[in-house]
Amino acid sequence: MSSTRTGTRGETVPTVPSAEPAATPAGSADVPALLERGRTLATPVLRAAVDRLAPPMDTVAAYHFGWIDAEGRPSDGDGGKAVRPALALLSAEVTGAPPETGVPGAVAVELVHNFSLLHDDLMDGDEQRRHRDTVWKVHGPAQAILVGDALFALANEVLLELGTVEAGRAARRLTAATRGLIDGQAQDISYEHRERVTVEECLEMEGNKTGALLACAASIGALLGGADDRTADVLERYGYHLGLAFQAVDDLLGIWGDPEATGKQTWSDLRQRKKSLPVVAALAAGGPASERLGELLAEDAKSSDFENFSEEEFAARAALIEEAGGREWTAQEARRQHTTAVESLDEIDMPAQVRAQFVALADFVVVRKR
Amino acid sequence: MSSTRTGTRGETVPTVPSAEPAATPAGSADVPALLERGRTLATPVLRAAVDRLAPPMDTVAAYHFGWIDAEGRPSDGDGGKAVRPALALLSAEVTGAPPETGVPGAVAVELVHNFSLLHDDLMDGDEQRRHRDTVWKVHGPAQAILVGDALFALANEVLLELGTVEAGRAARRLTAATRGLIDGQAQDISYEHRERVTVEECLEMEGNKTGALLACAASIGALLGGADDRTADVLERYGYHLGLAFQAVDDLLGIWGDPEATGKQTWSDLRQRKKSLPVVAALAAGGPASERLGELLAEDAKSSDFENFSEEEFAARAALIEEAGGREWTAQEARRQHTTAVESLDEIDMPAQVRAQFVALADFVVVRKR
Repeated sequence: MSSTRTGTRGETVPTVPSAEPAATPAGSADVPALLERGRTLATPVLRAAVDRLAPPMDTVAAYHFGWIDAEGRPSDGDGGKAVRPALALLSAEVTGAPPETGVPGAVAVELVHNFSLLHDDLMDGDEQRRHRDTVWKVHGPAQAILVGDALFALANEVLLELGTVEAGRAARRLTAATRGLIDGQAQDISYEHRERVTVEECLEMEGNKTGALLACAASIGALLGGADDRTADVLERYGYHLGLAFQAVDDLLGIWGDPEATGKQTWSDLRQRKKSLPVVAALAAGGPASERLGELLAEDAKSSDFENFSEEEFAARAALIEEAGGREWTAQEARRQHTTAVESLDEIDMPAQVRAQFVALADFVVVRKR
Repeated sequence: MSSTRTGTRGETVPTVPSAEPAATPAGSADVPALLERGRTLATPVLRAAVDRLAPPMDTVAAYHFGWIDAEGRPSDGDGGKAVRPALALLSAEVTGAPPETGVPGAVAVELVHNFSLLHDDLMDGDEQRRHRDTVWKVHGPAQAILVGDALFALANEVLLELGTVEAGRAARRLTAATRGLIDGQAQDISYEHRERVTVEECLEMEGNKTGALLACAASIGALLGGADDRTADVLERYGYHLGLAFQAVDDLLGIWGDPEATGKQTWSDLRQRKKSLPVVAALAAGGPASERLGELLAEDAKSSDFENFSEEEFAARAALIEEAGGREWTAQEARRQHTTAVESLDEIDMPAQVRAQFVALADFVVVRKR
């Protein structure tokens, strides 16, 4: 998939977090209700799938999903925004099928997403996720590998046990998306060891890590509902660009997000030396601020004292990124990807209310604050 | 799957390594030619699949398969015995299809097998495999996780891209086998922390770790050739018991194998404190040797000097296992599983030559010395 971009249409798309949310999101769809529907229909099936795992993998997985705490006591947890299940159910409705048709797809996508989180957290050495210790930190690296593998296998099982031609096609596209996730993680790891990453490389990596699975979520319900390849391709394109918009917003929140809302530290991505979009765009922009930023980051890479940098030192780097134009470019990129996502919906016929809900979800993704 | 056992039929089954190989293996099939056919047909397709991986995963995978060395130079490597590809091709012929029909199945099974090796070696901290440093040792833990994931995904891709109903059924059974592999590894890890493991628990674990994927190998070609579920079930049963026979022989070789032939250290499994079949059978047998063995192993578990034990100390433990009957019981178990595997072939019709080759492969598995 390429990340074709059309011109911005600032007047019709919502703003990103650096400005105020649009007063009237496109369509009259109720996004919280849409997200809640995804959670309500998918979660019981997801839990039943995870319950199939042999001990202690069932317990480790339940901890990861936030259903129990580290001591095994029931927990409410933070299930995340649940955009993927909402998309999977909505995409079933493109074909005229009921949202329930998309449920095995929603569950399979959630299983693959969480397989990748378990493995990525271990590979990246991340100790916290959703305000909790990660699985490898609590249950050890072997359980993180093993339970990740088990969730990946379960994802295929949940689809293939349907035994239909449609499920086979869905499983094939989910496999392609999973390969994208893995490619993206491989790129992410290799970029860590490089001094410079181009904007194109960053977009390709984010397309793999975030775009590919959102593309699958946005089309898998339709495939289960019997959609043809062209319909699935168009819905994938919507989801892919939505994913890139999502990630651009994430990259902004990773630097300028409100810690109260995101649950992350201030300047979180800077502390982790992430080569995210605002950083690579600022470095590519040229000019005095860009050059000064490049020098600073090169010094930081060699610094043994980086962990103890003050708030002011991170704030100075964030200010240079903004001065070099990295923040504004990323905000515009979120709008461009949002526009491309929404425009791609015009390529196929679907019920007006379903289209409005896809648009509303896209709006939600770019105006969110966490 | 249960490990139903029938009485031994010592006169019709081959011997296991503790004695001489049978003079005339059942059937006139040429096992080396059968293994070579599997290698010749499957390896190019396997290499083409691995070549699809993005750098550096393609290189890491090529190292794992022994196609290149740690410096990236072409290498002959030791591709292993190639029993699984041979089985997959042979199983296609059960349906009257040419062996080539089984190739995507052979490749998918090999990909899953190697995915599990990459992850298991990391989880178990094993530094050597097939006389070479393991992937995590050469390329780091992250690459071992990532490339394992990629091979698992490729396995699904290779099957599902066929786009047929048969391939969907094959993928579903491969997923079930993979879940078995993962369950077996989970059991293996949990048993490490326990003082005692029953013979039944050990057989269940070995059925998952070795039986499940051989069951899949022995049936996947037939599924791709359009076999019904009953035929696939019978071939799975043959492969499952063949796997248990294979593992029983492996457990014997792990203690009494010739280091020149196996490429492992003397008393290899004892050095790793493996609770393999001869050990658990000896501990379950009762009597003075069994009790003395139990006391020794309990002391060993607490010993800080275990790594430096002399050849004589390991030999003394091996002698106790033999005296308690653990060696003979395991040799009989290999024969019992071999018999059950071969007898299950009678439940379905297949060309006589194909049946003879399944029998010859089973004979090969129990008389091998490495």
